[in-house]
Amino acid sequence: VTTPYEEIDTPALIIDLDAVHANIAEMAAMAAGNGVRLRPHIKTHKMPELARLQLRAGATGITCAKLGEAEVMADAGCDDILLAFPLWGRPKLDRLRALRERARVRVSLDSVEVAEQVGTVGRRTPVEVLVEVDTGLGRLGRPPGAPSAELVREIARVPGVEVMGLLTHAGHSYKTTSEAQLRQVAEREVTDLVETAELCGGLAEISVGSTPTARHAATVPGVTEIRPGTYIFNDAAMLRLGLATERTVAARILATVIARPAPDRFVVDAGSKALTSDGVGVRDWIVVVGRPELHMAFLSEEHGVGRSTPGQGPAIGERLELIPSHACPVVNLFDLAYGVRGGSVDSELLVAARGKVR
Amino acid sequence: VTTPYEEIDTPALIIDLDAVHANIAEMAAMAAGNGVRLRPHIKTHKMPELARLQLRAGATGITCAKLGEAEVMADAGCDDILLAFPLWGRPKLDRLRALRERARVRVSLDSVEVAEQVGTVGRRTPVEVLVEVDTGLGRLGRPPGAPSAELVREIARVPGVEVMGLLTHAGHSYKTTSEAQLRQVAEREVTDLVETAELCGGLAEISVGSTPTARHAATVPGVTEIRPGTYIFNDAAMLRLGLATERTVAARILATVIARPAPDRFVVDAGSKALTSDGVGVRDWIVVVGRPELHMAFLSEEHGVGRSTPGQGPAIGERLELIPSHACPVVNLFDLAYGVRGGSVDSELLVAARGKVR
Repeated sequence: VTTPYEEIDTPALIIDLDAVHANIAEMAAMAAGNGVRLRPHIKTHKMPELARLQLRAGATGITCAKLGEAEVMADAGCDDILLAFPLWGRPKLDRLRALRERARVRVSLDSVEVAEQVGTVGRRTPVEVLVEVDTGLGRLGRPPGAPSAELVREIARVPGVEVMGLLTHAGHSYKTTSEAQLRQVAEREVTDLVETAELCGGLAEISVGSTPTARHAATVPGVTEIRPGTYIFNDAAMLRLGLATERTVAARILATVIARPAPDRFVVDAGSKALTSDGVGVRDWIVVVGRPELHMAFLSEEHGVGRSTPGQGPAIGERLELIPSHACPVVNLFDLAYGVRGGSVDSELLVAARGKVR
Repeated sequence: VTTPYEEIDTPALIIDLDAVHANIAEMAAMAAGNGVRLRPHIKTHKMPELARLQLRAGATGITCAKLGEAEVMADAGCDDILLAFPLWGRPKLDRLRALRERARVRVSLDSVEVAEQVGTVGRRTPVEVLVEVDTGLGRLGRPPGAPSAELVREIARVPGVEVMGLLTHAGHSYKTTSEAQLRQVAEREVTDLVETAELCGGLAEISVGSTPTARHAATVPGVTEIRPGTYIFNDAAMLRLGLATERTVAARILATVIARPAPDRFVVDAGSKALTSDGVGVRDWIVVVGRPELHMAFLSEEHGVGRSTPGQGPAIGERLELIPSHACPVVNLFDLAYGVRGGSVDSELLVAARGKVR
């Protein structure tokens, strides 16, 4: 028994399944056309059903950030998982050991210290690792070239691990302001890794790619794997980058106007507890679907405050669909989403990997 | 069976129960000393155990933002609840009706339209309502004085509701930069409401107060009720306002350093999925407990990137306690918290009202 769209209580997370299927097919065809493997990051959806759709469409495995996400996805039948986060400490190593008994697991890391911990799990069969390289984000990894090549050599000497290749995340691509700049970031993330791998005498895996860079990076010689996540849903950041249209944005927050306290102001029942504070201060950080004349001004936890031309805004009781600034953390705020098709509810989707902080 | 502090896996939400008890006692004594009722907002903790502590210390009831929170708290025995959010639509009105059968419930609102909906539930016994007034935040409510007095008169004519008083939330107090300015905001939130109530011929309830304004507002003649929330845990925003010290901050995120990719950079396993993006861009928006020399630079979803003097930062594997910018949405990201006392785990606290978006 599902709920008719008109009866969905708000705020609610709505997933347009037609857009999801189209987004999955497009990225899978792009990867196949360029001969690169696609390993989507499931942090965007956190839903086993959608991971299965991605695998059925040709993804060769999935990427997870946390063991808790990987365990949920293994329960759902995913048997090839990249854990793209350095693991530390006995509880996580025990869980890694258990996870390896039911899935092929790779781990990314950027230090000898973490490699030595992970290696304790690989005494019989070495743990496959990807060494993370910093291609400009300034988060994990050493710079490409000699510093990373030296790290690869050090890690290769650690018992219990086997270096399979290099990995990077060009998260700074989200801040590019032109197609040319975006292409440059994407090309650099691949060539930085390819050149570093050459210094190491060649490595099997060159794993790159965010949603912004994936379509460019897939065309650069040497790349073997792309790991986009957001493409399945898209969000306001993808709209700003020109990588999505309102039609291809699959994740929306359905909200109700609960106040019109001033002629130019309306308030909806979705605040940062439904939309997060990601992107605050950015132009058009939240988009009201089909209503370009409405602009969100600020969010409290439970209130979304919007502005309109005086007297022109929506009435109390009207329902609006909001495109969040950043889809991934928004999905993490909901236990359940409504999958819609052609304007009616098709299914309820459990956000099974929500809240897996560890 | 509880987990020793040293064995808590990270990232984890840690609640210092000694600080919680002291914070609860201090606010309760302050309210009692000024002869005002204390109705804490439970959105900060979302934990039935802590609501019971607040009530036992003298709170006369609780404030909730959502019906889902109120239902959880009613299950836990809270029988006097202010729902400080305008309700709209059949599912919520049905739940309000059911909730009224097991608790005294008041609702705040700022329009005739919402009052008419709420009134449908009050045919036999009118629903007690507080009319929200805008004392400067620019969110809900009309301006104080004549505009709000006129609204009160219109709402008073709606069948099924009984106007008990006025309510405001001076959320702009979080942006004050001096004690004098904060006191001014607090005094204004009370006097604005008192003057508006006089235009209405007097009203029983004058309900104000955020954590920043509560201690000042409680001293202003005419106030009857204060509704602070954050005071139970405090956070980096309260540190900046001078209303808390590291010792009185009860909610922390325990994190592990998982990388040292550069001499001046460390990365912990707590990003915006544990700390939210609230407060990004604000000076000292996240504080590392006992380590003033460490500064957080930016958060990804799973990574917290910090800076130190080159070569002076924490080692891989070291554990840090981080004070979040804003406690309330952080608590909403965890299913479970660890209650600690004197450095060891005392209990596991269920965040039972987490994720109650509706």
